Amino acid sequence: MPATAFRSRVAVRFGDVDHAGIVYYPRYFIYFHEAFEDLFNLEGPPYASLIDDRRIGFPTVHIDADYQAPLRYGDSLDVAVTVSKIGKSSAVFHYEGHRVSDGRLTVSADITTVCTHLDRFESLPLPDDVRALYERFAS
Amino acid sequence: MPATAFRSRVAVRFGDVDHAGIVYYPRYFIYFHEAFEDLFNLEGPPYASLIDDRRIGFPTVHIDADYQAPLRYGDSLDVAVTVSKIGKSSAVFHYEGHRVSDGRLTVSADITTVCTHLDRFESLPLPDDVRALYERFAS
Amino acid sequence: MPATAFRSRVAVRFGDVDHAGIVYYPRYFIYFHEAFEDLFNLEGPPYASLIDDRRIGFPTVHIDADYQAPLRYGDSLDVAVTVSKIGKSSAVFHYEGHRVSDGRLTVSADITTVCTHLDRFESLPLPDDVRALYERFAS
Amino acid sequence: MPATAFRSRVAVRFGDVDHAGIVYYPRYFIYFHEAFEDLFNLEGPPYASLIDDRRIGFPTVHIDADYQAPLRYGDSLDVAVTVSKIGKSSAVFHYEGHRVSDGRLTVSADITTVCTHLDRFESLPLPDDVRALYERFAS
Repeated sequence: MPATAFRSRVAVRFGDVDHAGIVYYPRYFIYFHEAFEDLFNLEGPPYASLIDDRRIGFPTVHIDADYQAPLRYGDSLDVAVTVSKIGKSSAVFHYEGHRVSDGRLTVSADITTVCTHLDRFESLPLPDDVRALYERFAS
Repeated sequence: MPATAFRSRVAVRFGDVDHAGIVYYPRYFIYFHEAFEDLFNLEGPPYASLIDDRRIGFPTVHIDADYQAPLRYGDSLDVAVTVSKIGKSSAVFHYEGHRVSDGRLTVSADITTVCTHLDRFESLPLPDDVRALYERFAS
Repeated sequence: MPATAFRSRVAVRFGDVDHAGIVYYPRYFIYFHEAFEDLFNLEGPPYASLIDDRRIGFPTVHIDADYQAPLRYGDSLDVAVTVSKIGKSSAVFHYEGHRVSDGRLTVSADITTVCTHLDRFESLPLPDDVRALYERFAS
Repeated sequence: MPATAFRSRVAVRFGDVDHAGIVYYPRYFIYFHEAFEDLFNLEGPPYASLIDDRRIGFPTVHIDADYQAPLRYGDSLDVAVTVSKIGKSSAVFHYEGHRVSDGRLTVSADITTVCTHLDRFESLPLPDDVRALYERFAS
């Protein structure tokens, strides 16, 4: 993970575990999306304004994810985000989640999103400010 | 999708959509897991008894998923499950979700699970009744 | 609970429990809302059309809830809904949830909603078809 | 809300809204529970150790909640927690949530919890360290 990664931290919450006592695996995508939102909110155009004012969103079209270790209640996860591929409308985000207690890689994922006009639901070329944000965190 | 698929149907619920007005993408894994639970509950050993009495679970270790079309509030999804690979401890489940209104393929995913002892958190050979269940729905 | 109650059944799902091993208490309101949606979808105007076409929604303004017994993974809940008070714009829904395995009352709640125009976010008199629905399930 | 309140802040996340475009009302109880967890984690015995090591939990038995204003994507909520009643085993937590953008009271709730042994599922007298924590934030 290069120095350019955007980093955020998330605490496992009481309702995040499943009946097997570990974080329910869909929950990781919520953790990743929170990091994705924060990437915009802290480093680029606020995510709510993209959606509400410009009607631009980034639906997910592909996921490739590996789970290496479980995460339990009481753990926290360090999430690092980079952009591993930037196309005309699409981009691949690479996420790595390390368990805070021991630094162990817990989960990694490549998530492909497509810049989309939310009213027409058609792909859009990446706007300049979004492309600039992606390029700053390109790996 | 062969005739052997296990099928279930899920209605998109009020809280399942995100701020872009479509089903939030982590939610599909919850839909898939419900089909996975029902596969056990209706066709094999009840899932709760596996976990509570035998301490056997099936953590996810890999996901490969494609989203082909959005799903909205008011839609329902037909989920078909087959088992595309059966190993000693692991198995790959193939999920296809079709939108009920027009039959369109909305999402597909290959999800690899590993049969695991939940107290020791070590992989286990598939028990006979679980293997038999998987083989009935093998594709 | 009178004979007029609308009834639905929900199975506790794998991600519905919390780290204490019982259904996470906010989850019951999702169960109740599913029954509320089904009340409209099966007995009145479809809930999605109210929101999407007529821009009418029913935000919750008050909750009074009692939890009498825990619900665990593997349990199912029978939910009965009646309308205990009908005002000009508001209505109070009474929910009772009984555990299917032993019939025990698990949770009950009075939830007050206000008929609201979703664009202006102002209260609206109950439309005739909604009022008729409520009256059929009045307790 | 007295000076003794415990305060935390939560950002509305992408999946927190419902199809009406406002925060889905069960979600507030998740926000409140996060504040409740943080109250323990930052000011008292860590919540995970209470549950995992001492098998003590705090199931909710009663909720009385009022929703005064909607919260939307992009908003944040300031949550203030006090303990308004302390019994032998039970306690009432008072939550007030103010919208960060304009300070408006958005939601308030009284949530009664009972100190419970999670294996026997019987009420327990409040342990000394828990009682001391509650008393520091008593209103």
